[in-house]
Amino acid sequence: MITRREYDDARRFAWDLVRQSGIAVQDADFENLEVADLGLSELPVTGAQILTLASTQFLGVKALVLRPNQFFPQHRHPPLGDYPGKQEIFRVQWGEAYLYLPGDPESHPRANPPSHRKPFCTVWHEVILRPGGQLICPPNTWHWFQAGAQGAVIWSFSSQVTDAQDQFTDPQVVRKTVIADT
Amino acid sequence: MITRREYDDARRFAWDLVRQSGIAVQDADFENLEVADLGLSELPVTGAQILTLASTQFLGVKALVLRPNQFFPQHRHPPLGDYPGKQEIFRVQWGEAYLYLPGDPESHPRANPPSHRKPFCTVWHEVILRPGGQLICPPNTWHWFQAGAQGAVIWSFSSQVTDAQDQFTDPQVVRKTVIADT
Repeated sequence: MITRREYDDARRFAWDLVRQSGIAVQDADFENLEVADLGLSELPVTGAQILTLASTQFLGVKALVLRPNQFFPQHRHPPLGDYPGKQEIFRVQWGEAYLYLPGDPESHPRANPPSHRKPFCTVWHEVILRPGGQLICPPNTWHWFQAGAQGAVIWSFSSQVTDAQDQFTDPQVVRKTVIADT
Repeated sequence: MITRREYDDARRFAWDLVRQSGIAVQDADFENLEVADLGLSELPVTGAQILTLASTQFLGVKALVLRPNQFFPQHRHPPLGDYPGKQEIFRVQWGEAYLYLPGDPESHPRANPPSHRKPFCTVWHEVILRPGGQLICPPNTWHWFQAGAQGAVIWSFSSQVTDAQDQFTDPQVVRKTVIADT
């Protein structure tokens, strides 16, 4: 749960960073800027701001906006019927990001997940992405990521978006963000 | 057919404009910058420079780079077996572009195709795209476009790329660019 003020602040921060990053946007795009606190009530530490530019039956285009060191928990996009699951291409537009997938674990990782979330990070093959760097995450593959010290704006180009079905290793995660209007 | 020099000049022009447009790229991306003269030997007038950032079995991400007033002929991405054809989302990153699809024809269109290519433009429903503006072109739908007076950098986000199967109305078009090393 986040407060209305946290929600508004997060969106404003993200909007400014998207424009600073060089992605061409129009004012109307702001309506499609969401905040994902994953029900953890620690948004500046864990979660993301997500600008959806397109989402169709075939593909999705988003900009993931992360605060400095903001962490996004381990998850995967599972198969659904004939659909093998969402394939996702991450491409950094601004800042620096550390992505982790199955494979040889990094002994000295750049990322440092919040200590109470770290037990749910089980894949530690590291890919460091700087502007113009990109990585293809196959369907149904565990992954998690964290922004560098300046934050990051990361393109997410994907096949059909099915985020409501995402699977997370951390049992505390819920996909829906609740805004408290108190 | 284009000369090696025309090919090199077109790639250098496009690379500079991509970087100027704000898209984050790395030096290695230059290798994936192609020139499409469509076999018409009039590249500055008809054709495109195409930077492919990703092309998988699920999706494609390209930047279409157009010279001032450069025209790209009418075509469609047809169904192939179970695949309904490429869905393509155009989003302008820099400059201005005029796209034409089936629908109510524009009586005073912004575009002005080369006179010898104009007879093959049969759809005239106009969409004017400026930075941050975007349009979804459904599979198997005729479309053509032209850059404004400054040129344009246009994102093409799509389902699986099948460009070798594209259908063009202009019988002179061939998809393969031949470079003359004379």
